[in-house]
Amino acid sequence: MAVKKNNTAIKNSPKHLLGIQSLSILEAKSLLNEAKKFIELNRSSSKKLDVLRGKTQINLFFEPSTRTQSSFDLAGKRLGADVMSMNMENSALKKGETLIDTAMTLNAMHPDLIVIRHRESGAPNLLSQKVNCAVINAGDGRREHPTQALLDALTIINRKGKIEGLKIAICGDILHSRVARSNIYLMNMLGAEVNVIAPKTLMPKSIERMGVKSFTNMKKGLDDCDIVMMLRLQNERMQGSFLPSKREYYEFYGLTPEKLKFAKKDALIMHPGPMNRGVEIDTKLADDINVSLVKEQVELGVAVRMACLKKYCK
Amino acid sequence: MAVKKNNTAIKNSPKHLLGIQSLSILEAKSLLNEAKKFIELNRSSSKKLDVLRGKTQINLFFEPSTRTQSSFDLAGKRLGADVMSMNMENSALKKGETLIDTAMTLNAMHPDLIVIRHRESGAPNLLSQKVNCAVINAGDGRREHPTQALLDALTIINRKGKIEGLKIAICGDILHSRVARSNIYLMNMLGAEVNVIAPKTLMPKSIERMGVKSFTNMKKGLDDCDIVMMLRLQNERMQGSFLPSKREYYEFYGLTPEKLKFAKKDALIMHPGPMNRGVEIDTKLADDINVSLVKEQVELGVAVRMACLKKYCK
Amino acid sequence: MAVKKNNTAIKNSPKHLLGIQSLSILEAKSLLNEAKKFIELNRSSSKKLDVLRGKTQINLFFEPSTRTQSSFDLAGKRLGADVMSMNMENSALKKGETLIDTAMTLNAMHPDLIVIRHRESGAPNLLSQKVNCAVINAGDGRREHPTQALLDALTIINRKGKIEGLKIAICGDILHSRVARSNIYLMNMLGAEVNVIAPKTLMPKSIERMGVKSFTNMKKGLDDCDIVMMLRLQNERMQGSFLPSKREYYEFYGLTPEKLKFAKKDALIMHPGPMNRGVEIDTKLADDINVSLVKEQVELGVAVRMACLKKYCK
Repeated sequence: MAVKKNNTAIKNSPKHLLGIQSLSILEAKSLLNEAKKFIELNRSSSKKLDVLRGKTQINLFFEPSTRTQSSFDLAGKRLGADVMSMNMENSALKKGETLIDTAMTLNAMHPDLIVIRHRESGAPNLLSQKVNCAVINAGDGRREHPTQALLDALTIINRKGKIEGLKIAICGDILHSRVARSNIYLMNMLGAEVNVIAPKTLMPKSIERMGVKSFTNMKKGLDDCDIVMMLRLQNERMQGSFLPSKREYYEFYGLTPEKLKFAKKDALIMHPGPMNRGVEIDTKLADDINVSLVKEQVELGVAVRMACLKKYCK
Repeated sequence: MAVKKNNTAIKNSPKHLLGIQSLSILEAKSLLNEAKKFIELNRSSSKKLDVLRGKTQINLFFEPSTRTQSSFDLAGKRLGADVMSMNMENSALKKGETLIDTAMTLNAMHPDLIVIRHRESGAPNLLSQKVNCAVINAGDGRREHPTQALLDALTIINRKGKIEGLKIAICGDILHSRVARSNIYLMNMLGAEVNVIAPKTLMPKSIERMGVKSFTNMKKGLDDCDIVMMLRLQNERMQGSFLPSKREYYEFYGLTPEKLKFAKKDALIMHPGPMNRGVEIDTKLADDINVSLVKEQVELGVAVRMACLKKYCK
Repeated sequence: MAVKKNNTAIKNSPKHLLGIQSLSILEAKSLLNEAKKFIELNRSSSKKLDVLRGKTQINLFFEPSTRTQSSFDLAGKRLGADVMSMNMENSALKKGETLIDTAMTLNAMHPDLIVIRHRESGAPNLLSQKVNCAVINAGDGRREHPTQALLDALTIINRKGKIEGLKIAICGDILHSRVARSNIYLMNMLGAEVNVIAPKTLMPKSIERMGVKSFTNMKKGLDDCDIVMMLRLQNERMQGSFLPSKREYYEFYGLTPEKLKFAKKDALIMHPGPMNRGVEIDTKLADDINVSLVKEQVELGVAVRMACLKKYCK
């Protein structure tokens, strides 16, 4: 996630959702407004529209995912689309087929939209250049996870009424996090002030160029914040050279009731899930419905994906 | 499956189907009556209703299953539900997520019903306490498999016209069998007399407290029986200390035409499948359409699941 | 694929599509005509019919497949069927269940059609004898892959206007190829002249009995051909005794711009996919939209499967 000089923004064509970086503020707001309408539908007893009847949505997941894939799957089905989910770990890739060959093959079947998750940064962009249909990025490497940022924004708006003027802290493995990156773009765009907090080994160099303030200390970084977004610490980092130990990480960067007091009194907690309880967050805090928005994030995630599917599936 | 003093019944709330043990006789009969109506639908050329249109059914299988998962999948689709099947062996569990976190996540997506199979007894009950939707137990550890017992009951009623007054033998690995346990509850409730037959090592102590007669001998146990339910002998038992050898098991407890003669002349055979041919049942007997109800069990299983989905998905 | 004296044709009953060998010319032409109608539907913005509403289609894949399974899945959904796809590698087979037991179980759930892929030649035929529904062979061992041949025929007709009188070369691992076998039957039936080209180790003995000319030399085999069908060289052959090396294979049998000149000037290239670029085909040639029909094959594959589902699902 280091901001290199040759790291030029990948532009969204209007038909793809590849990242927040290339989304206009109008597009972002329009997606959030559309998503609001789907919140009530999902809470009602009959959750079905015909908006995407006759459309084909393919979920192409090269990395496993419970919540993101389920969210897109249900979003598509509730809008009436024909949804086909492909777990690409058991696939023609074993036969040596490339992403592009897979893309070309699926494209020839005339999907209207492909949702892709891939461990390589830029894979969705590459895909979008090869297919005729819309592409939605469901997470690519360390780069972006735009629907996560949109659902985070919707969750904040739903509870705080706005994003403009809020102070938002993003804490944890900033270096490897596509969630952090997409949220930095989006929260900045929508007028929030963003602090990022991480140990030095997990903080990208020159992160300030993205328009954030960086901290290696929770007390300073959380000061006066309205929202505390905790990131998932991926298991593979825990034993590497990035971190001394889980316990030490928890002591300095794990969110506890004590550390939460550094933020505003009415500060709310977010986490993209799945949570490592006792590593990046205290388990009771994670479940405290007075301060944790984790469930609302998942709930509103379906609404956001419905809005994205509806907008791009045309 | 040992009946311990602290083994209190897990109560069904009216919105969940967690086990037969906590089902009232009225509820059981109502499900069976509803299921009867779906038998014809499934045999017809157009197998589709809109009863569950707009509803979301999630199949959450932590243990692999061909027939039970397929049965629930087709049942939901034929009623018009949006069905999402999740094989939880390739899931966020790998990332260390707990059952409860998975449940909370899925619950936030507003499913109307979750069908769960889990290797731990009581997992569906735990799930039901954490979610807002209905939960149907598709098999939990050694505890219960209520839809299996219901489909067995429907199959018997379909062929014998009734259950009351019949004598039913359940033979095999009683100790580890959730199918046995659910059937003991249901057949007793519906007025049948139940014999259980197993080698001592596979017979729970104090099984008589469940209202059955226990036998270690097929000749005595099958005497005068109308129905012979054979259980699947799980491969992992075969090499353990429970059994001397497959061959010896077959000799003493495998159902053969000779042993079947100990039962009534018009006795019928059942098996929850998949069958170990030549272990717990003679292969020709398994396929003899004059005495084996195995296919009808599967067929009526879809009807029973449709009835359960319809009833609980509200 | 050797043509043995006891290799009697497996007859299609009119309700199954088990192979081209047992298809009449009228049936083949009728399927191709029906498929033509679906090409436009798949290119339109609303790809949905109710033709198979109320029907249950089960995709039973014992070998993994991206494109064939996806193609059947989308074909069924676009026709309105309830589609259930089963990856049989994670299945009851692990519990020791046989193909026949699986078939009987699924059959009892009243599917209207089962699409099967299996590594054993003849498995779909065996299945068809045990079930009440229609069976479509999606590839069985080295025997047949009838929908592949039909989509190849439709692709040729779509570009050349006809098949009768054309000269078609099939090149590569003829010995192990169900695609070759089905195409030889179909192209012959529809009036084409067929050349097969392979190294001796990959050429079935007595292949001429199937009504083709055989060549071990690309120059001679491609002479005057209208269509060049390249076969996939399976990785497991590459290190075996069948072939000296990938490089040598490419040199003698890989399709390059130079070798393509041996064929007619307006010759077109086909490949069932996935392609081994640089092994059986030059990578640029594979992507050259002026000569390669690979994408059209995939596209028209969905249309062909829709025609097959519609015809047999009754």
